[in-house]
Amino acid sequence: MSAAERPATSAGGSLSARLRESVLPLWQRQLQHPFVVALGDGSLPRANFEFYIRQDALFLDVLAKCFAYAATRSEDHAEIEQFGRLLLNTLVVEQDLHRRYGERFGLTPEQMAATPMAPTNYAYTRHLLTIATTGSLPEIITSMLPCAWIYAEVGTHLTGNRPPAPGHPYADWLRTYADPEFDAVGRWLRERLDLHAERLSAAAIARLYEIFRISTCYEWLFWEMAWRQEQWLA
Amino acid sequence: MSAAERPATSAGGSLSARLRESVLPLWQRQLQHPFVVALGDGSLPRANFEFYIRQDALFLDVLAKCFAYAATRSEDHAEIEQFGRLLLNTLVVEQDLHRRYGERFGLTPEQMAATPMAPTNYAYTRHLLTIATTGSLPEIITSMLPCAWIYAEVGTHLTGNRPPAPGHPYADWLRTYADPEFDAVGRWLRERLDLHAERLSAAAIARLYEIFRISTCYEWLFWEMAWRQEQWLA
Amino acid sequence: MSAAERPATSAGGSLSARLRESVLPLWQRQLQHPFVVALGDGSLPRANFEFYIRQDALFLDVLAKCFAYAATRSEDHAEIEQFGRLLLNTLVVEQDLHRRYGERFGLTPEQMAATPMAPTNYAYTRHLLTIATTGSLPEIITSMLPCAWIYAEVGTHLTGNRPPAPGHPYADWLRTYADPEFDAVGRWLRERLDLHAERLSAAAIARLYEIFRISTCYEWLFWEMAWRQEQWLA
Amino acid sequence: MSAAERPATSAGGSLSARLRESVLPLWQRQLQHPFVVALGDGSLPRANFEFYIRQDALFLDVLAKCFAYAATRSEDHAEIEQFGRLLLNTLVVEQDLHRRYGERFGLTPEQMAATPMAPTNYAYTRHLLTIATTGSLPEIITSMLPCAWIYAEVGTHLTGNRPPAPGHPYADWLRTYADPEFDAVGRWLRERLDLHAERLSAAAIARLYEIFRISTCYEWLFWEMAWRQEQWLA
Repeated sequence: MSAAERPATSAGGSLSARLRESVLPLWQRQLQHPFVVALGDGSLPRANFEFYIRQDALFLDVLAKCFAYAATRSEDHAEIEQFGRLLLNTLVVEQDLHRRYGERFGLTPEQMAATPMAPTNYAYTRHLLTIATTGSLPEIITSMLPCAWIYAEVGTHLTGNRPPAPGHPYADWLRTYADPEFDAVGRWLRERLDLHAERLSAAAIARLYEIFRISTCYEWLFWEMAWRQEQWLA
Repeated sequence: MSAAERPATSAGGSLSARLRESVLPLWQRQLQHPFVVALGDGSLPRANFEFYIRQDALFLDVLAKCFAYAATRSEDHAEIEQFGRLLLNTLVVEQDLHRRYGERFGLTPEQMAATPMAPTNYAYTRHLLTIATTGSLPEIITSMLPCAWIYAEVGTHLTGNRPPAPGHPYADWLRTYADPEFDAVGRWLRERLDLHAERLSAAAIARLYEIFRISTCYEWLFWEMAWRQEQWLA
Repeated sequence: MSAAERPATSAGGSLSARLRESVLPLWQRQLQHPFVVALGDGSLPRANFEFYIRQDALFLDVLAKCFAYAATRSEDHAEIEQFGRLLLNTLVVEQDLHRRYGERFGLTPEQMAATPMAPTNYAYTRHLLTIATTGSLPEIITSMLPCAWIYAEVGTHLTGNRPPAPGHPYADWLRTYADPEFDAVGRWLRERLDLHAERLSAAAIARLYEIFRISTCYEWLFWEMAWRQEQWLA
Repeated sequence: MSAAERPATSAGGSLSARLRESVLPLWQRQLQHPFVVALGDGSLPRANFEFYIRQDALFLDVLAKCFAYAATRSEDHAEIEQFGRLLLNTLVVEQDLHRRYGERFGLTPEQMAATPMAPTNYAYTRHLLTIATTGSLPEIITSMLPCAWIYAEVGTHLTGNRPPAPGHPYADWLRTYADPEFDAVGRWLRERLDLHAERLSAAAIARLYEIFRISTCYEWLFWEMAWRQEQWLA
């Protein structure tokens, strides 16, 4: 059944649950991606991790702006406030990456910031920015949801709810995303989306399936980008 | 000398100081507006104050969004963060108005929120939103600056740096805007504007003079709107 | 048939008919505005007409951009094409005003273009631009509709479908807006709006009524602006 | 020398010439891409051509909108008018593709329009749309320039200024892009860019190099996409 044929409502749970289900094979392949597996067992080469962290810092800068765009689109006080807090939290996480990993990699903040955006990161963030500037609020939330949701699932999956082994080189990263506090971001986005979705037409819901699928693809391609240390053509 | 002829830089101080100077008569007339005078001496009829507060709450909703738009336009981490904080602070002030004055006026939050925007408030906020969505960051800052700056000057002027007399009906309002903490908002906006202005062409600076003049006009017209309890044509 | 003779349509009619009906008293007052009456009988002082034409040229520049924004929001080929044509036609009309009346008033194109936008024109165009940059396509169409529709009704009303008397100083203007070709613009906008409206929620429709009312107010205020040769505070 | 170090002006010709020179190896590789070579000698499999045409039709829909966004950003009448004409011309070309090739491929317009956008096309158009909605006018022009410029060069290169051989399966396509009229689009974009560039800072010019490089990459990747009949992950 194509997204266009998919009913706007169904007995089968919330919209966010149905979105995840609609891309389930791709969703589950994230956990098996060699980058993710190696991140979990600590075998990931430092060069790949550094590449990933530097790209992730650039990604979070754009994500913070998408929360700002979301705030401009909302008419609900509590929601605008929460988007404002997510904007600030995203910047804090991003600065923390710069500070913590910059030190670890022996990079100055200037060197971290001068990293060129790799092609997949560029494409993913242009997808987010296009929706942030021209889309509806449910579309903006949907575009950001796989990022928050998949990272929480990856964190939980890799740690199995146990603290990382002593000396694990990526223990910090694992703790961040396995933390139930991090999962609260995705949970809040799902709640808002499910609420907004009640007033949407079938055509508007079909667009959300498309956006969710594309963001989920880009999540997988982001691991792939870091695994291959992807570069632009020259 | 017209704005277009005005040099981009001058020995006569910062851009923000020169902007204020360029509209000085209009700026100073704010302090003599009958609404402002009556607000200061406590003689302002309650109906006018209520009208004003209800319009101000609607204005602050838009101002909060303009801070969000400003965040989307900035490339500087500390600046984006501060716009995020100003967004949150503006919402807090706005909710406080709703709560505090809603109680005092015997209005539910729903009644407060259902207030229609008066014509001058509508025109002022459309001016801000047009610049927020199509202007440069220095233009967005300039459009919001008179609001922050004039209120701090009005607050200081009306209290003369002394606490309001006991039983003054508008003591709360006076304390809010006479507070040096409130003045910090305008000071930060001026600092950012003066910094950004260093890289602007004479033509870009001329547009800032125009924007500053229009926002200053709208500040005066906002007092006038509340004094006349302005309504739309019907 | 003049506006006054047009039969009231029931709540069962098209959305565009119901929008017009919802502001009927204000709509009909346009025809009685002293500026409109004097424009029709030729007694309007040249200074008021010149003021009006110079403001209208500035208005049309913004209207052309709103057609461009509308094109960015549409997903229908024929509709995008028509918005593109309206963009070009609006520029042609605007340039014609500059050329024809510039000559008549003894103004160079540079002098025409250097006219500062009067407050009501500024507020009206900020209303249009805010909706063009942040609104839905039905909202953008609704915001532009009163302008096209009222001018066609004013043109027809003032000429009574007869050519203006020989030597009428504003014969050109009257012929332009009494021309059935001009009315085609409003008719097309109404058709598109009525079509889009079929898929809108009650809340979305309520916003259209509000936008239509505000644009209609600004149309009346535009005549008033030219009648009083409105200036900004200084 | 990196783009950031590149001087804003140089003795070496116009900005547009220097932009092309800065990506010369990648620029010239377009002509050698197997898709382009096979398109020129007529050996390109029909399936690849059909894939390409269907993606190109989707691309032109977005390009038309980028011309509309450009119109909203310009302050020059003749320039706005030309963007309006390019918007209309792009739609005409797009509809022609639908009609002409739709017939040839035995596809209804509905089938043509239902083609899903392939990943590279999606990424390229998100790049264009992000710049169209958040960038300056010189940035918007720069982002669209490689598309117009490369196609004119490919057309001229493949035909060698001679009409395609009788019975060449892609004669229509070759004639379209070898036509000097098509080259006029790129020439006009270069003229406008070179004019706007005179007022830009070195930092602003550096961003144009980056944008031009990315659009040129996407042009190469677009041929590659059609050659491999690229699909999304599932």
